[in-house]
Amino acid sequence: MDQVRIIEVKQSVFADNDKRAAELRGELKARGIFLLNLMSAPGSGKTTTLTRTVELLKDEMKIGVMEADIDSDVDARTMAAAGVKSIQLHTGGMCHLDADMTRQGLDELVDGDVELAILENVGNLVCPAEFDTGAVKNAAILSVPEGDDKPLKYPLMFQVCDVVLVNKIDVAPYFDFDLDKCREYIKMRNPKAVVIPICAKTGEGVEQWADWLREQVAAWRS
Amino acid sequence: MDQVRIIEVKQSVFADNDKRAAELRGELKARGIFLLNLMSAPGSGKTTTLTRTVELLKDEMKIGVMEADIDSDVDARTMAAAGVKSIQLHTGGMCHLDADMTRQGLDELVDGDVELAILENVGNLVCPAEFDTGAVKNAAILSVPEGDDKPLKYPLMFQVCDVVLVNKIDVAPYFDFDLDKCREYIKMRNPKAVVIPICAKTGEGVEQWADWLREQVAAWRS
Repeated sequence: MDQVRIIEVKQSVFADNDKRAAELRGELKARGIFLLNLMSAPGSGKTTTLTRTVELLKDEMKIGVMEADIDSDVDARTMAAAGVKSIQLHTGGMCHLDADMTRQGLDELVDGDVELAILENVGNLVCPAEFDTGAVKNAAILSVPEGDDKPLKYPLMFQVCDVVLVNKIDVAPYFDFDLDKCREYIKMRNPKAVVIPICAKTGEGVEQWADWLREQVAAWRS
Repeated sequence: MDQVRIIEVKQSVFADNDKRAAELRGELKARGIFLLNLMSAPGSGKTTTLTRTVELLKDEMKIGVMEADIDSDVDARTMAAAGVKSIQLHTGGMCHLDADMTRQGLDELVDGDVELAILENVGNLVCPAEFDTGAVKNAAILSVPEGDDKPLKYPLMFQVCDVVLVNKIDVAPYFDFDLDKCREYIKMRNPKAVVIPICAKTGEGVEQWADWLREQVAAWRS
């Protein structure tokens, strides 16, 4: 628990992020590494969701996790305790990760044996959506207490996501949250997005999410 | 309700944001306008808090609200329904407001009779903290479902805030949220920050927040 590695990632000097992201994706394909970019607002439950995900998948595939934060190493410690290889990326105040920052993290994380690499992006519903990290798939978490109207206010995040996990579904009775309306707003932004309601705390719905991830990893590595 | 004004604010071409923010603050002082910058993550309850605040203060002072969002006009409609002058600022994808964008909003909002102007910043715990908007005071909302560790992960937001409202305190029994720990983390970042637990939905604690605001406005305008 005391040996969490902290990497200070530097913002890329390269303006052509899209090109570098595509290059990184090509390399990942060649090496058989599936990279998932997990995004959400602060406190939506990214780390708890990853802990559950790792519990379900760690005996089937080799997993490595990169925890991006402006400061602290609490998330990397949590993931290490969950039994997977984990490093903390410090962004030096930056509000997102780009492809080059992601590559710096992967270089430290992967030593030949990772099949599923997960990037937990900085908690932010705006900026991370603007930068292709080189990930194979993008996932976003929207938690019930944030409200069902978030796809209206943060359009790009929902446009770039392949899958949206609606987390903290257990507390729905205590909030004015309409799941049907939320689905409708997500579909407005992105008709192809898969929507999975979950409760990372209790594990509800996480099996369905793990199934989705299994399929994606298998398709990428085939 | 149908006449919500939407202003497309453009990012400043001026690199010297701090200087322009100080100039704006000087003008506000001369004109007797108190500008509050309200920041938080998405879905922390900024608009609901403002609705409550306006209920308590609108008979005492003239209030105008600027609702900044990347898209949609739902918040400005809510504020207009609460009975105050309200405009929607669209940031064109930008994740924060700077002093010049704030001035563009104020030019539309203020026609000589606003004593308290409130800027509801873009929902984002990272970038808005980096840009002085010219506001007299900065407030942040941290809601219980986000977790008590947020001051550890988003240090700058808590450093630049004069007051932190801990919202959704009514659902604390359903989350692992330690208010004492949260206060301790906030004080770590900013020993001077005032911390006020509230529930914007029920109104709990909002009177204390309104008192704080009354004092600040009176001091600024004296």
